[in-house]
Amino acid sequence: MTSAPDRDGVWLPLRFRDLDAFGHVYHAEYLTLLDEARTRWFREVLALDEPGSYVVARIEIDYASSLVLDDGEAGFLFEVERIGTSSLTLRETVRAPDGRVVARVRSVTVRRDLVAGTSRPLSDEERDRVLALTEDRQ
Amino acid sequence: MTSAPDRDGVWLPLRFRDLDAFGHVYHAEYLTLLDEARTRWFREVLALDEPGSYVVARIEIDYASSLVLDDGEAGFLFEVERIGTSSLTLRETVRAPDGRVVARVRSVTVRRDLVAGTSRPLSDEERDRVLALTEDRQ
Amino acid sequence: MTSAPDRDGVWLPLRFRDLDAFGHVYHAEYLTLLDEARTRWFREVLALDEPGSYVVARIEIDYASSLVLDDGEAGFLFEVERIGTSSLTLRETVRAPDGRVVARVRSVTVRRDLVAGTSRPLSDEERDRVLALTEDRQ
Amino acid sequence: MTSAPDRDGVWLPLRFRDLDAFGHVYHAEYLTLLDEARTRWFREVLALDEPGSYVVARIEIDYASSLVLDDGEAGFLFEVERIGTSSLTLRETVRAPDGRVVARVRSVTVRRDLVAGTSRPLSDEERDRVLALTEDRQ
Repeated sequence: MTSAPDRDGVWLPLRFRDLDAFGHVYHAEYLTLLDEARTRWFREVLALDEPGSYVVARIEIDYASSLVLDDGEAGFLFEVERIGTSSLTLRETVRAPDGRVVARVRSVTVRRDLVAGTSRPLSDEERDRVLALTEDRQ
Repeated sequence: MTSAPDRDGVWLPLRFRDLDAFGHVYHAEYLTLLDEARTRWFREVLALDEPGSYVVARIEIDYASSLVLDDGEAGFLFEVERIGTSSLTLRETVRAPDGRVVARVRSVTVRRDLVAGTSRPLSDEERDRVLALTEDRQ
Repeated sequence: MTSAPDRDGVWLPLRFRDLDAFGHVYHAEYLTLLDEARTRWFREVLALDEPGSYVVARIEIDYASSLVLDDGEAGFLFEVERIGTSSLTLRETVRAPDGRVVARVRSVTVRRDLVAGTSRPLSDEERDRVLALTEDRQ
Repeated sequence: MTSAPDRDGVWLPLRFRDLDAFGHVYHAEYLTLLDEARTRWFREVLALDEPGSYVVARIEIDYASSLVLDDGEAGFLFEVERIGTSSLTLRETVRAPDGRVVARVRSVTVRRDLVAGTSRPLSDEERDRVLALTEDRQ
């Protein structure tokens, strides 16, 4: 008896256009999908103010397996590794519906005040929510 | 007296579509542009067989500055850090025409035999060309 | 009293990357989204063999209103206008969740035999299903 | 003796990412490339104010032949069909370097005042330049 792969995290449908000429999801497209899933996680799980107002400062990504169109969708798991003044360092995992890991990622993103055009410190409320979430996991 | 920024490396024109809603070249697009420039460098400088037949195994990218449409194009410099059996580890720099660095990157790419669907060892001739280029720089 | 906008047709979530520097879904992206929705409709409603194996021969598109990220998703309605030997001419409508029409489209697509590399005539079964669907609507 | 295909118009390099899983430039990508070339033509040939400040109101496109990566670049020819108050209707042709036509297009674009968020009438100077160009061709 096999158990179904779990459905934790954010899931996004793939598009035909995500594929490259080799028939795999193009490696740059992983960043687009991660960005989409991360913003949703910032909104729904961390409840950050202006969840989409951030810039990506650094990405490390290991491509472990190819995503193909038959996978249909990709799943994204996020975990906080470090909280900075304005930045969050996350551990991110991308999975296919059959459970296999397709990429392991570390991202550093910096909150932006889009009107002022500067980085924005995380508020105490945001910091507390992030810390609470981090402790829940331990 | 200021000297003109040098024009070393591969230069690619930007497109309006490379921008995101913040008016900057989207962070995932850097990987697309890097891939395009890298393949050209594999062809024209390293003279690899089937220059475009590779997969990206790992990327580390630090975003140092925003690229905007007025930059018009981006320049790409590549340097070999390590030669594996089938893989190349490169140090990559992305610059704007005014000379400022917009990203610092390390990539690991693996040569592919597209017909066999397996990784392809670098030939002795390819390895010699890569080594000769590496020594020239020192 | 207002009734909720209907949810007929295929709905696809938008991505931040679908936006251009003006903050609207980029006009070329409508074709990508239409293609995604059309393939799903070919599979789920027309039940065509190899639903994604077609080429686009002609598109006419009128952009009626901007799609923005707050719309969240876009809805796609398809209607058969003409059945050719290997081609289908469709009337297509793109809507936002609030019910406003954002684009009116006519597409001509041609079924492909990807292995033979030629156009593929619709089978009698496929033709009957398309005709039955067309008659249902009248 | 064959003459070289002419190099009239705007030419843009293709990218690997322009391809889809069939190995052809994706049909939506033609609109992205056309947009890029059209803006350049608005700037360099029509000398319009704020050449990139326009929205696409309508596109008709006939796909005549596939573009592949070996084509390397695509060429774009533009001809004015009609001048409206704020709009231009253009006849557009996309060609491969070997001279074959890959797409025939009609576009309607509307000049935008991005600050006011409204359509912007063409100035008398712009109108005169467009008319002079149109008469030159006859």
